[in-house]
Amino acid sequence: MRLALRLAAKGRGRTSPNPMVGAVVVKNGRILGQGFHRGPGEAHAEVIAMRQAGKRARGATLYLNLEPCCVHGRTPPCTEEIIRRGLSKVVCAHIDPNPEVSGCGLARLRDHGIEVMAGSLEREARELNEVYIKHITTGYPFVYLKIAQTLDGKIATQNGDSRWISSPESRRLAHRIRAWVDAILVGVGTILRDDPQLNVRHVKGPNPVKIILDSTLKTPLDAKALDGGRVIIATHQRADSSRARRYRSRQVEVWQLPPDDRGMVNLMALLRRAGEKQLTSVLIEGGQKVFNSVLKAKAVDKLLIFLAPCLLGDGKESFGDLGVHRMADALQIREFQTRRVGADLLVTGRL
Amino acid sequence: MRLALRLAAKGRGRTSPNPMVGAVVVKNGRILGQGFHRGPGEAHAEVIAMRQAGKRARGATLYLNLEPCCVHGRTPPCTEEIIRRGLSKVVCAHIDPNPEVSGCGLARLRDHGIEVMAGSLEREARELNEVYIKHITTGYPFVYLKIAQTLDGKIATQNGDSRWISSPESRRLAHRIRAWVDAILVGVGTILRDDPQLNVRHVKGPNPVKIILDSTLKTPLDAKALDGGRVIIATHQRADSSRARRYRSRQVEVWQLPPDDRGMVNLMALLRRAGEKQLTSVLIEGGQKVFNSVLKAKAVDKLLIFLAPCLLGDGKESFGDLGVHRMADALQIREFQTRRVGADLLVTGRL
Repeated sequence: MRLALRLAAKGRGRTSPNPMVGAVVVKNGRILGQGFHRGPGEAHAEVIAMRQAGKRARGATLYLNLEPCCVHGRTPPCTEEIIRRGLSKVVCAHIDPNPEVSGCGLARLRDHGIEVMAGSLEREARELNEVYIKHITTGYPFVYLKIAQTLDGKIATQNGDSRWISSPESRRLAHRIRAWVDAILVGVGTILRDDPQLNVRHVKGPNPVKIILDSTLKTPLDAKALDGGRVIIATHQRADSSRARRYRSRQVEVWQLPPDDRGMVNLMALLRRAGEKQLTSVLIEGGQKVFNSVLKAKAVDKLLIFLAPCLLGDGKESFGDLGVHRMADALQIREFQTRRVGADLLVTGRL
Repeated sequence: MRLALRLAAKGRGRTSPNPMVGAVVVKNGRILGQGFHRGPGEAHAEVIAMRQAGKRARGATLYLNLEPCCVHGRTPPCTEEIIRRGLSKVVCAHIDPNPEVSGCGLARLRDHGIEVMAGSLEREARELNEVYIKHITTGYPFVYLKIAQTLDGKIATQNGDSRWISSPESRRLAHRIRAWVDAILVGVGTILRDDPQLNVRHVKGPNPVKIILDSTLKTPLDAKALDGGRVIIATHQRADSSRARRYRSRQVEVWQLPPDDRGMVNLMALLRRAGEKQLTSVLIEGGQKVFNSVLKAKAVDKLLIFLAPCLLGDGKESFGDLGVHRMADALQIREFQTRRVGADLLVTGRL
């Protein structure tokens, strides 16, 4: 199963909206076939592994991290292939979280006399596919909040200097994470201040969709972020329609969304729309206003904090007023983990 | 040598102003004796180890983390004991950093035909005795700055609530650190706000000397910190002498020190005085104003930041304005290390 998970992870950044799946066919302690899912429309992991095993798959055990599918999607149901090839046992990490098909694959196999088991390395497998699981069960994308700050919680000096807080290694990893997610979200303030490209550099990988949160359509038409790739400007229902047309004529999508109670774009409505459009994961990169809004809306699933080993003292705060007045009400970070990235410390955790 | 270092560390918190020293006597791969220094006036580590080895010490090798002393202090010079007992080789981690005797011990042994070596695990040994080394070479105490903050760099909510940022395990470790240092330093603001006892609780160990930084003698005479143990109030040369007398009548020492250019107590003068009085290490515990002053004065040797896995957003900042206006001028933390303490992360590093 550990190998299956390792194989599954090879598809990272390419399988959306599908999960990452890895599969291994084993008989008498020997690996006869292995495979992973490379993306929508491509063969499923278990089919690749079984094909590799060929006739030797008869009587073998199939390990895979997710329950095999039992319905026709872009490919025929894997359960039928498993039955046809005569495997005797299927071990998966967990059943498909998709409420519409959950458990049906294993039930079908069991009906055909195949021994089935679920629960092997389930925690690791669910973490691997946290994005898929969140999206398929809630309709919302999995939301990452990424921030680079000093050890004393500053994202820039008081006059706005932030280059560079984090090490080259951290910036490279940040680009790798961009390549893994379906979309990046930034506020228009970041566009106006930094004019970022918001694409993937320093590493190989696909560019994510760019979403700019811009209630009043202040994004300049010559902003670098509007060049290349799919761009969405998320704005108000009542936004200036002639301005919206000008973006559209530049192939930029404009999503007009209901306002929240402060008259800003309703973040949850934006995320729901993104989920509907099969954007299963969104990486929020800034600035402070957007961080503040998503944290207050409790919309963040995972925090990625790059901590640079330095102190600024005074400076721009990471998150601003979150409405917390007592220490006991502080936003708790669960399951937090740390690792070194270059000179920095990467702290990750769930909110 | 690793064993010698481990033995040496057993004396932590008890040897000041002496260094921590551990010693092992080895012959033909067998350990014949071991010892560590338990504190001023007690036997030196190498003497304990050699006594344990007895007559078998003849021809043996002595491992110890610090060059043996060659002068009469509170105990006779160890070099003479080594010569008398006929050891054939002495391996130490580094020579004594005390400029007055540095190298003299090894030279004396060499003159008596004993093979000597220095440099084994030198980095670890110097780190173990960083306090002794700083004090003996500069006359200043080694300065620790300890802070408990949230992951976004806050030490309290905006209205001052700070109980409890850190986990019980972190607070217990903080008390252990108090027991290791010679003195704790806090500002009078902390006394007025929290009325802390500033003693060692939750763990066994000696209470450190308490130093209260109080330019205008606002410390209440019934402050809990004034009870028990040695207490020093560090104030201005021009402080109200009748008030100073009242503290003195309560057995509190009042150190009247020159002001700095902002009219506050000159921190470096205070630290120099502490060093002269054989306070070899000072733990600075707060509050923000004191943190700010010592960081600006570049007087901090080691940072100990307990990071609680939570976010406050708005709140009291850890350090305040350090006069840093460009990211490139941020105070860099060198050799930073992290470890889990309960639910928290302890980040340590040099400044």
